[in-house]
Amino acid sequence: MTQHHGQDGPAADPREHLTSPVTRAALRIQHGVLTAARQFLSAQGFTELMLPIIGPVTDPGARGAKQVDIDFYGHRYKLMTSAILYKQASLTAFDRIFCVAPNVRLEPLETAGTGRHLVEFHQIDVEAADASRETIMAVAEGLVTHVVRAVSTGLPEELDPLGRDTSAFADLVAESFERRTHAAAVTDLHGTGHDQNPDGEIDWVGEATLSRKASKPFFLTDYPKGSRGFYDRESREHPGFLRNFDLIAPEGFGELCSGSERENDYATIVARMRETGENPAKYGWYLRMVREGVPASAGFGLGLERLTRYVAGVESVWQASAFPKVAGVPAP
Amino acid sequence: MTQHHGQDGPAADPREHLTSPVTRAALRIQHGVLTAARQFLSAQGFTELMLPIIGPVTDPGARGAKQVDIDFYGHRYKLMTSAILYKQASLTAFDRIFCVAPNVRLEPLETAGTGRHLVEFHQIDVEAADASRETIMAVAEGLVTHVVRAVSTGLPEELDPLGRDTSAFADLVAESFERRTHAAAVTDLHGTGHDQNPDGEIDWVGEATLSRKASKPFFLTDYPKGSRGFYDRESREHPGFLRNFDLIAPEGFGELCSGSERENDYATIVARMRETGENPAKYGWYLRMVREGVPASAGFGLGLERLTRYVAGVESVWQASAFPKVAGVPAP
Repeated sequence: MTQHHGQDGPAADPREHLTSPVTRAALRIQHGVLTAARQFLSAQGFTELMLPIIGPVTDPGARGAKQVDIDFYGHRYKLMTSAILYKQASLTAFDRIFCVAPNVRLEPLETAGTGRHLVEFHQIDVEAADASRETIMAVAEGLVTHVVRAVSTGLPEELDPLGRDTSAFADLVAESFERRTHAAAVTDLHGTGHDQNPDGEIDWVGEATLSRKASKPFFLTDYPKGSRGFYDRESREHPGFLRNFDLIAPEGFGELCSGSERENDYATIVARMRETGENPAKYGWYLRMVREGVPASAGFGLGLERLTRYVAGVESVWQASAFPKVAGVPAP
Repeated sequence: MTQHHGQDGPAADPREHLTSPVTRAALRIQHGVLTAARQFLSAQGFTELMLPIIGPVTDPGARGAKQVDIDFYGHRYKLMTSAILYKQASLTAFDRIFCVAPNVRLEPLETAGTGRHLVEFHQIDVEAADASRETIMAVAEGLVTHVVRAVSTGLPEELDPLGRDTSAFADLVAESFERRTHAAAVTDLHGTGHDQNPDGEIDWVGEATLSRKASKPFFLTDYPKGSRGFYDRESREHPGFLRNFDLIAPEGFGELCSGSERENDYATIVARMRETGENPAKYGWYLRMVREGVPASAGFGLGLERLTRYVAGVESVWQASAFPKVAGVPAP
């Protein structure tokens, strides 16, 4: 990976962090990323919605991270860990929606130094009714390609001082992204001597290995069912595997985006909740809505700070955040 | 006020709320508002930043609303009630910034039916270093005018079904906004027989009265010192009055925006905190930063749902929110 401007963690002093030339350039690039992303999605017929950051229940699917509780007039609410439940709900009224929303996940302390985890971060969250996985993967690919092209041609004065050579994007803009299955990636990793669990998430070491070998982003598809939340739809043709995908950046930058076709069958969702240790009784408004019917859909969440990190070529996600919070460390 | 589509409160069923033709049109208009606002501010040299939604301290200046506490790895943090502290901090690195950020304020129960209060809402929050009140008022005026022009010419198919006649904006796009002082507004209200307190906020009845008499948005300036937070700068020429402003919409829609020149003198801020009942010891990171120096600045926060409500001509702010939360009422 391009190891520019490495440090162990963000400066404790917000001024020192913000006035660093790296932070300033990364944040100007992030503004370019957001502008290009909104242009692309609006042109594709997606309506931007402002979705809640607090609610009775949220996405349980954040690997190992804890949810934040709040008191809402005597009711126990949560901060959103992702917008997934509201994205599905929004499709009762709109065919194609997106949001750029903050998420808060109390990540375990060991993530503080990964360079890939923030407690407070943002996702470009996209969902389309009646879309297949292939349709929404094409949206994700088009979105990332458009953003990279817009920033690399439009903001050379920000990329140059970071030492980010836009030739790193030559394959990305010239060729379509590869698709490979989770199973093929596991075989690949076993071939390199890495002991990847075939039934779980690609672990961080494995992901970094695959990422470093690539020259452009690539999709990993068909994760085993147990590795993701109840809302990712299981394949009817290949039971035990999900109709999902991750998008992995090259150069060791790792995961940018996760997406899937969504489960929208009430009984299946309740069964999947139970399988994943979730109590359906907690999901009142969501399950009432699903029981009355929600559209089939597919969507993804693209990490804004991760995408900025990749485009800017900086070492850590906290360099792409104005006021970064890493696990366990008090910060403004 | 244009009393289209009135109801007492949002439907309890999120599907019923979202699929209402009023909600759908208002949210499409909101997307247009956001797109136009970002175009305008980016063209004026403002960088969009993603600012925190949680932190050790937040804006205490929300009239009568309570803050939400959270536990951040054993530290007591708050949900942001506004972005003000981070806006001032961001100016250590950027001259002109904006954000479109969620805020959460546990409003008192009596606000549930005002049509003007949401517990969870968004502000287009703008701040410029070394700007005077007059400079930033011109930005606010230009922003609102650009947004109204863009939506009224670009989205007639959304405004028409709402019965929103764009002739309501004729004066807004043709003439500059009037400026009048808080003292003049108080005199005006006393003339109508309304018992407005000359030393406090313009109360809701008074604000509605002034708003109904106007044919385009207007600024109210020079509020008495005790009526606003410690960060609004007191006039040196007129002690006891602030270098601040509100922007009030016509037709009874009321306040859209509050702004001010900011206090950036450490000793004055500490004194103002004490005067307003705030404990300076709670403001650790902010006061350390101010003591080392932050730029003089001016800025404003423009309520997104309030602006959408005015542009769309709908009765209540909750009609401009996808998943509205009003005081005390459980909601998704």
